[in-house]
Amino acid sequence: MRSGTNLPRVGGFNRSVILDTIRRSPEGVSRVEIAGATGLSAQTVSNIVRRLLQEDLVTETGRAASTGGKPRTLLRTNPTAYFSVGIHIDPDTITLVATDLDGSVRGTVHRRTPRTPSANQVVRQVAGAVRGLLERAQIPVDRLLGLGVACPGPLDLSRGLVLSPPNLPGWHEVPLLAYLQEEFGVPVVVDNDATAAAIGERWAGAGGARMGSFAFLYFGTGVGGGLFLGDQVWRGNSGNAGEFGHITVVPNGTPCFCGNKGCLEAYVRPHAIVAETAAALEKRPADPLPLKLEPSREFADYELICQAAGTHPVARQVIQRAAAKVAIAATSLVNVVDVERIVLGGKGVRYVVDAYKAAISEAVNSRSIARGVRTVQVEPSLIGEDAGARGAAALVLDGAYSPQLATLFSRTD
Amino acid sequence: MRSGTNLPRVGGFNRSVILDTIRRSPEGVSRVEIAGATGLSAQTVSNIVRRLLQEDLVTETGRAASTGGKPRTLLRTNPTAYFSVGIHIDPDTITLVATDLDGSVRGTVHRRTPRTPSANQVVRQVAGAVRGLLERAQIPVDRLLGLGVACPGPLDLSRGLVLSPPNLPGWHEVPLLAYLQEEFGVPVVVDNDATAAAIGERWAGAGGARMGSFAFLYFGTGVGGGLFLGDQVWRGNSGNAGEFGHITVVPNGTPCFCGNKGCLEAYVRPHAIVAETAAALEKRPADPLPLKLEPSREFADYELICQAAGTHPVARQVIQRAAAKVAIAATSLVNVVDVERIVLGGKGVRYVVDAYKAAISEAVNSRSIARGVRTVQVEPSLIGEDAGARGAAALVLDGAYSPQLATLFSRTD
Repeated sequence: MRSGTNLPRVGGFNRSVILDTIRRSPEGVSRVEIAGATGLSAQTVSNIVRRLLQEDLVTETGRAASTGGKPRTLLRTNPTAYFSVGIHIDPDTITLVATDLDGSVRGTVHRRTPRTPSANQVVRQVAGAVRGLLERAQIPVDRLLGLGVACPGPLDLSRGLVLSPPNLPGWHEVPLLAYLQEEFGVPVVVDNDATAAAIGERWAGAGGARMGSFAFLYFGTGVGGGLFLGDQVWRGNSGNAGEFGHITVVPNGTPCFCGNKGCLEAYVRPHAIVAETAAALEKRPADPLPLKLEPSREFADYELICQAAGTHPVARQVIQRAAAKVAIAATSLVNVVDVERIVLGGKGVRYVVDAYKAAISEAVNSRSIARGVRTVQVEPSLIGEDAGARGAAALVLDGAYSPQLATLFSRTD
Repeated sequence: MRSGTNLPRVGGFNRSVILDTIRRSPEGVSRVEIAGATGLSAQTVSNIVRRLLQEDLVTETGRAASTGGKPRTLLRTNPTAYFSVGIHIDPDTITLVATDLDGSVRGTVHRRTPRTPSANQVVRQVAGAVRGLLERAQIPVDRLLGLGVACPGPLDLSRGLVLSPPNLPGWHEVPLLAYLQEEFGVPVVVDNDATAAAIGERWAGAGGARMGSFAFLYFGTGVGGGLFLGDQVWRGNSGNAGEFGHITVVPNGTPCFCGNKGCLEAYVRPHAIVAETAAALEKRPADPLPLKLEPSREFADYELICQAAGTHPVARQVIQRAAAKVAIAATSLVNVVDVERIVLGGKGVRYVVDAYKAAISEAVNSRSIARGVRTVQVEPSLIGEDAGARGAAALVLDGAYSPQLATLFSRTD
């Protein structure tokens, strides 16, 4: 049954709305402007702001020139009131990022992901990395709002705090989340890395750059996606929505690790790009490329190919074919979810972002069914290559401070 | 900016929540049970129910056995308080359905769609059909809550009340909606036919059969889809979400009317199935099928092929190939939106629903990326072949009586 809503829940929601409004006004905003922007009464705004000031989440900073009457006091968020740490567990790399309340990065750590870890080894390594990061960024543990963990899908949310990332069989049943929660005494949240990246993007673009509806296409070791629909994240019924890399682009095509055939990911992930390039190079000995072709150097090979795509004929063809497949999947995606914006992010797009952007934009704006009534914007991510980890940090901030429709309907009993 | 919410808006939302709760309890529900189900206070429930009784939307019907204390009065919706008429404009057929508040059908009309209509001719014909339907179903015009119009996408919502369905060039600029609004003095709402069907399905399955998240795959003259995500319809940023038929299933494949290539619709719409069968039959003169192969008899040919698929080798192959493509697109859809249920509806699935259901269920539950953590249900529609028109009628009911999150944030000024 759909729940009704009531005053205490509305109060919590309005608090988030006001905090969100202040956060989106880096130049400062007055109580009167908040009332105008949110449609809330002056009294409600005043009461909520008083509590936010007491909690040190907001500060009063100077006064704005007034159009008459007394000058209005401006409010800003206090970015150093709290901090968050995001941990992105990718099959290649574990990335940690510490951010302040504004989502600004205060420190970053990269570690190689252990291939066959023991549970003990992993949890101690990660906890040690968090502690080192907090120390170097000079963040006191009691100012840590929480830890966010992001890993590739699929997620089994019903399994709670046991993490078992696919492609990382050794990680199965590593009790990382429960350990971190106990070790640091703060909430630990977990999400799909691409969904986390979308939340991080929304947090970074809260000034308006990422309001509304967008799909975050995440290119890492694999290919994922996160969805914001109507300015709310859509995680899916089982927490596995937005799996952009598993849109079929070739019927009965190349087998994918996921068990299906012809998935986009099977053609455009770094492993596939390197293999396709290596095979093509064998037939063209006159056009060599200095690939290492060792499993541990695969991502470096991939980036070499991406960089060479501008000049090297084989690399160019491979990347063009990949871009064409990405564009086909993006058109299907747009036809299904009808978003106004596509964002490209993750370390995998560093050198192909322009090629992918051009191919996607051309496709969705000349071949999607609603192209006549709207233009879809295609843009690089605001949060860069560490989108997974920055997104994981944003999970904590978002859970604590974004207006969540769900809070209006949560049962208090 | 996200708006805050306040008491009057919350009141309107809670009214819808309570009415929805009563509607979903055909056996009757007491005030105490409503309070328990919605989390609202006894006082709030009592006040809102009093107004619903005054407006004749709800009736008190008998008393339930009590576990002690005085027996509780049961509340039911009054299905004949208001009626709605849905009009589905399909390239082949215009279908009108009158329903009561419960969504039960009180009358149906089918008309052939004029191919090259004049504006005058169309608006008079449709208005006449509405009037005739109301008369036969004995519905007084003053009990008409509104008119819903559904037509194939894409919709240009910015164009307001001018309808220009694709595949119906003669209909361009027919001012049907404004005319109906003036003629009957009631609100006229318009939506994509597949989205309307999804809303109709949700309305019909409000007892629980269609709560949560589902995709309605609509098979008519074309192939469309509607999405309910988190128990709310998702129309998309431009009102064109859920275009299931325009998921690419063959890269650089058969050109589609939409301007793209290899869309599902280009392979499985009745026109394509008939053409494919006719071509295959030419090569196998020993296995004839009595197709008419006239444009005006195309849908009859299509149904003949669907019916013959159980016994005729050519028809079987064609339908199996179509089912396989539908299953590929459904798997991509599930990987993107992660719904718990897929519903098959529209006149196009009358004789293939079992074949499509089996193929989709096998695919999404053995090849989608999150298959290990959940099972997707695949089911025939509750609202049958006239899903477009019944959905159009439900648009009116849904807009008037379903809890809409948007009402919480609408500006009163």
